[in-house]
Amino acid sequence: MTFEIKERDAAGRLCQFTTKHGKVTTPNLLPVINPNKMMITPKEMKKRFGIDILITNSYIIYKNPELKKQALESGVHALIDYNGSIMTDSGTFQSYVYGDVKLDPVEIVQFQRDIGSDIGTILDVFGTPDQSKATSEQGVQETIERARKSIPQKGEMLLACPVQGSVYPDLREYCARQLSALSADFFPIGGVVPLMEDQRYGDLVRCILAAKQGLDPSKPVHLFGAGHPLIFSLAVALGCDFFDSSAYAKYANDGRVIFQWGTEKFDDLKELPCSCPICSKYSVTELKELDVEERTIQLALHNLYVSFMELKIIRVALSEGWLWELVEQRASANPFLSDALRVFREPAHLQWLEQYEPTSNKTALFYTGPHTIYRPMIFRYHTRLFTRFEPLFHTTVVFPERTKPYSMFYSKEMKNILKQKNVNLVVSSTLGPIPLELDEMYPLAQSVFPMCVDQETKEKAQQVMSRFLRDTEVIVWDEHALITAEKPLGSPMDFDLRRISAVADMQFGRGASEALFAGRINIIKSTRTGKIRNIICDGFHVVSMRAEDGLFTLKINGGRRLHKRMKYPLLRVVVTDDTVPFVKEGKSVFAKFVSECDPDLRPFDECLIVDEHDMLLGIGRTLLARNEMLTFRHGMAVKTRESIKEG
Amino acid sequence: MTFEIKERDAAGRLCQFTTKHGKVTTPNLLPVINPNKMMITPKEMKKRFGIDILITNSYIIYKNPELKKQALESGVHALIDYNGSIMTDSGTFQSYVYGDVKLDPVEIVQFQRDIGSDIGTILDVFGTPDQSKATSEQGVQETIERARKSIPQKGEMLLACPVQGSVYPDLREYCARQLSALSADFFPIGGVVPLMEDQRYGDLVRCILAAKQGLDPSKPVHLFGAGHPLIFSLAVALGCDFFDSSAYAKYANDGRVIFQWGTEKFDDLKELPCSCPICSKYSVTELKELDVEERTIQLALHNLYVSFMELKIIRVALSEGWLWELVEQRASANPFLSDALRVFREPAHLQWLEQYEPTSNKTALFYTGPHTIYRPMIFRYHTRLFTRFEPLFHTTVVFPERTKPYSMFYSKEMKNILKQKNVNLVVSSTLGPIPLELDEMYPLAQSVFPMCVDQETKEKAQQVMSRFLRDTEVIVWDEHALITAEKPLGSPMDFDLRRISAVADMQFGRGASEALFAGRINIIKSTRTGKIRNIICDGFHVVSMRAEDGLFTLKINGGRRLHKRMKYPLLRVVVTDDTVPFVKEGKSVFAKFVSECDPDLRPFDECLIVDEHDMLLGIGRTLLARNEMLTFRHGMAVKTRESIKEG
Repeated sequence: MTFEIKERDAAGRLCQFTTKHGKVTTPNLLPVINPNKMMITPKEMKKRFGIDILITNSYIIYKNPELKKQALESGVHALIDYNGSIMTDSGTFQSYVYGDVKLDPVEIVQFQRDIGSDIGTILDVFGTPDQSKATSEQGVQETIERARKSIPQKGEMLLACPVQGSVYPDLREYCARQLSALSADFFPIGGVVPLMEDQRYGDLVRCILAAKQGLDPSKPVHLFGAGHPLIFSLAVALGCDFFDSSAYAKYANDGRVIFQWGTEKFDDLKELPCSCPICSKYSVTELKELDVEERTIQLALHNLYVSFMELKIIRVALSEGWLWELVEQRASANPFLSDALRVFREPAHLQWLEQYEPTSNKTALFYTGPHTIYRPMIFRYHTRLFTRFEPLFHTTVVFPERTKPYSMFYSKEMKNILKQKNVNLVVSSTLGPIPLELDEMYPLAQSVFPMCVDQETKEKAQQVMSRFLRDTEVIVWDEHALITAEKPLGSPMDFDLRRISAVADMQFGRGASEALFAGRINIIKSTRTGKIRNIICDGFHVVSMRAEDGLFTLKINGGRRLHKRMKYPLLRVVVTDDTVPFVKEGKSVFAKFVSECDPDLRPFDECLIVDEHDMLLGIGRTLLARNEMLTFRHGMAVKTRESIKEG
Repeated sequence: MTFEIKERDAAGRLCQFTTKHGKVTTPNLLPVINPNKMMITPKEMKKRFGIDILITNSYIIYKNPELKKQALESGVHALIDYNGSIMTDSGTFQSYVYGDVKLDPVEIVQFQRDIGSDIGTILDVFGTPDQSKATSEQGVQETIERARKSIPQKGEMLLACPVQGSVYPDLREYCARQLSALSADFFPIGGVVPLMEDQRYGDLVRCILAAKQGLDPSKPVHLFGAGHPLIFSLAVALGCDFFDSSAYAKYANDGRVIFQWGTEKFDDLKELPCSCPICSKYSVTELKELDVEERTIQLALHNLYVSFMELKIIRVALSEGWLWELVEQRASANPFLSDALRVFREPAHLQWLEQYEPTSNKTALFYTGPHTIYRPMIFRYHTRLFTRFEPLFHTTVVFPERTKPYSMFYSKEMKNILKQKNVNLVVSSTLGPIPLELDEMYPLAQSVFPMCVDQETKEKAQQVMSRFLRDTEVIVWDEHALITAEKPLGSPMDFDLRRISAVADMQFGRGASEALFAGRINIIKSTRTGKIRNIICDGFHVVSMRAEDGLFTLKINGGRRLHKRMKYPLLRVVVTDDTVPFVKEGKSVFAKFVSECDPDLRPFDECLIVDEHDMLLGIGRTLLARNEMLTFRHGMAVKTRESIKEG
């Protein structure tokens, strides 16, 4: 198995996963194939949806003498006539639905191995949401025990060990941690179907978050039984990689039609609000005229088209950096999903999410409603404002609330006057206070908010503002007020210097600006836009400012300065000795050669690459979060930009 | 031409429109066909999208001697090889884009008539958003003048007269009113492309609202130049019936791909987040391998699939009653659209919207965010609470805030105790105060809100609550408080009586309960649910309570009582003498036979059908708003349920 991060957003990832039967791009959906009765054949699915993976049930095969014989003789791939990756389930869900299934946990794993499943699943103990904690814990212990017994039997098969623990986050996390320690290959999150059936999405989020916090980040995570596209984006944002759908067939059998926003009864529809090939081919009337079995198949195909479409949208959002926007849009379709997003506001969860949140994004940050202000990116901005940014003067001039940073609303002359005063200049924005020095930095200049936001967003911004202004004398801006505010402290400080210092501290941590910019500074600006581009210090190019996000790209000379000033492990990615020569040649750093990483580094941060004795080897840009660097066996951890040649 | 409302929601309508060339269901989209260069032929469009109408440009045909000759000889339908309905534009947009087009306004109308256009358009004067009011007004006057001159020339062609007036609502409304008085057939709202290009959706909403307020409601309204699906639902909710898309081709030429949530550059996409037949057939790589022209056609087809899908979704939402939900979902994708929804909160706009808002809906009212609490349905509830509902006692017991009405949260015993006290019982909910008597009435029991709503919604609900409690002694509920609250006023009032009285007043107006329920009351309940079903008064069945929305269905005996008590024009739909015999036979009332209607009746309200001397003829359910009844020439206005037989 390989599993490698290719793109990322929120705490979600777009990965390449491989089994013996080929490559799969995640996030992805495994259609459930009933080996007894295939409504749609795997071949048809391959043709229509390009599926690379599916799931079938080993328990059903095992119980049916005919299927069992055939599967053991020619393998599960031949049995269902499919040569892509096949995952098998074990009968756990059947035990939940039908009661005890009388199955030997080890035997069913051996059986899955023997029929050539690519990913087998242990017979875990399904924990229901209404269980007591004691019962849950027993189930978790038994699940872990079965995993322990099953793993030695797996052979070449990948083994999925579901995380159980009912609605108890500590049990979920414990179970996840124990299973990770056993080196399972694949982690379903189990026992969540009843939560989804009752639309308890808030509890679902807590279960996923707890499991993720205990899991080895380098392994695929599968939200077991999640087949409705409504919740895919939310689960992906939390780091789920796989879903499975029996819903496409079950709903179709029931005459229910799946849509992005929910489910409709076929009989209620006067037309099909969809443009998939099925809905483009048939009108409702024509579908009604088909015989029941044929209509059911067509509805099932539609259900799959809609489900796979949502995954495509999610993968695009992941790559383009608007996954949170998508999650919030989907939540606007369902009040219970909306509740679920509130769970993210809990500080512990926000902190966990912030670790995986990329430093910047290709796409602007879009406001969707009251959830937006609590996004990890904004939480990070607020946090760093208090821990990394230092107001320079005693007096702060606050500009009236605007939805856009200062630069968009005030004239150039006005700006020039203001920049010459020795006062802090702060815009009271929807994102909270924006010191003028930071107004071109992601996400401040790259945010799109309406002119008028909701009350909750306003209050949150005001809260942060009051805290920010606590220790300074405050003047609300008007031209006259400004004259009073001016307290000449010698010659006015150069505004460009203020900007580069402030951004450096926000981006690299306090002290970074002193390290980078000690000496004679030469700021080179774009002749076209007038914006800062390169910063030369004592004749050395130390950093460049990126036009797209207003953050710095580090140059090797800047790296040397930061390395000298910022103590270990700050800004470091530490590589093992065997990879040192490669880094010196300018090669990028693969995750498996990373031995340590600054806990404050985030994906897409600029970083220092050092050896195990903290010798600077080069500088680059991280692609992974620390936890990922330390666990992934495949894929790049740092894209090296410049390295220090031997000697 | 016929134009007839079939389904409705918000201020939107699903209509059947007919021209000489057939039927069209609205809302609908007219693809723009360039007669010079058809990227996709009308036949292909008919086959793929089932289009029944399209738009082409008479100015382009007129300016090209070859096309002109052909069109005059064999008609525009033959010219573009399409036998459905064809609308033609006049060159106004070209004059806006390229400056003066030197065209005689009357001649171009005659030309459109002569080439057999189904709907021709006058050469109106395009008003830009940056115009002064004086310039705008001149343009409006000239547009009206041209309409006046053009109408006599239209022959059998329907004539579209665009509403202009730049961003000045009074000019828009004036223009609409004048054009309506001239009996134009079809009303585009013109001059809005620059607003859409700048995403000034708030201004767009003001333009549409102003135009609609001046327009004859019985004529189709076309939002000229609106081709992006993002705004379709919003415009439909305000009563727009048609859109046109040149965007599908223009964007495709530009390598841009249209999606529900916005636009993406084809070159940026690693996969196509869509399941339309094009995106199901080709991968991004395969599309890139096509030659440019062929790829452009495929992207244009995709753009049309997405656009028509949105219209299908809208039509389903209209029929099922979740159009506001859809509008709010779409607004969550775009901050500028979100701003536009705030325009609806202005009291004058809310009042206008409320007139068209149906009395109840098949679908529950879903919370999507801070806009929800300002929906016309909730505005109506709050208004009626203060104008139609009367608290019975001096003391009000308030139940702690819940997102669901009382009945969902308190036990049966508790309810029984509470119902026997002589106090007002009110739940403090997300929708504001809910007197227990009303808790099964639409939309209160049929609302789905999250457990935790946004600050703005909370504050709005609290505001209404404080106003509601202003004149009573308030006790926040707990069991002990209740004992204090009890002030025996004789025997406790029967709660069922309280419920039916309160609902009758809310639904029919103050005094209705006294009229309906004076006498010996017998309440028949469902044996299964225990809910009120039929109410017999002095032996006569006066009303039934509907299970789905907790509102009353009127019986003829209830109608007689209301007719006696409620003065003209309350609850009346007045029909002309020639239709009286038909109503007496139980036939439904067609709009063209309605001569007056109570301004307080809403679509789907129970009503009294009377003749012009206020003689009661029967009772029924309205299908139209008053303004629609008085203007529409086609379709049903009231579905008669019971009538009074002759003699």
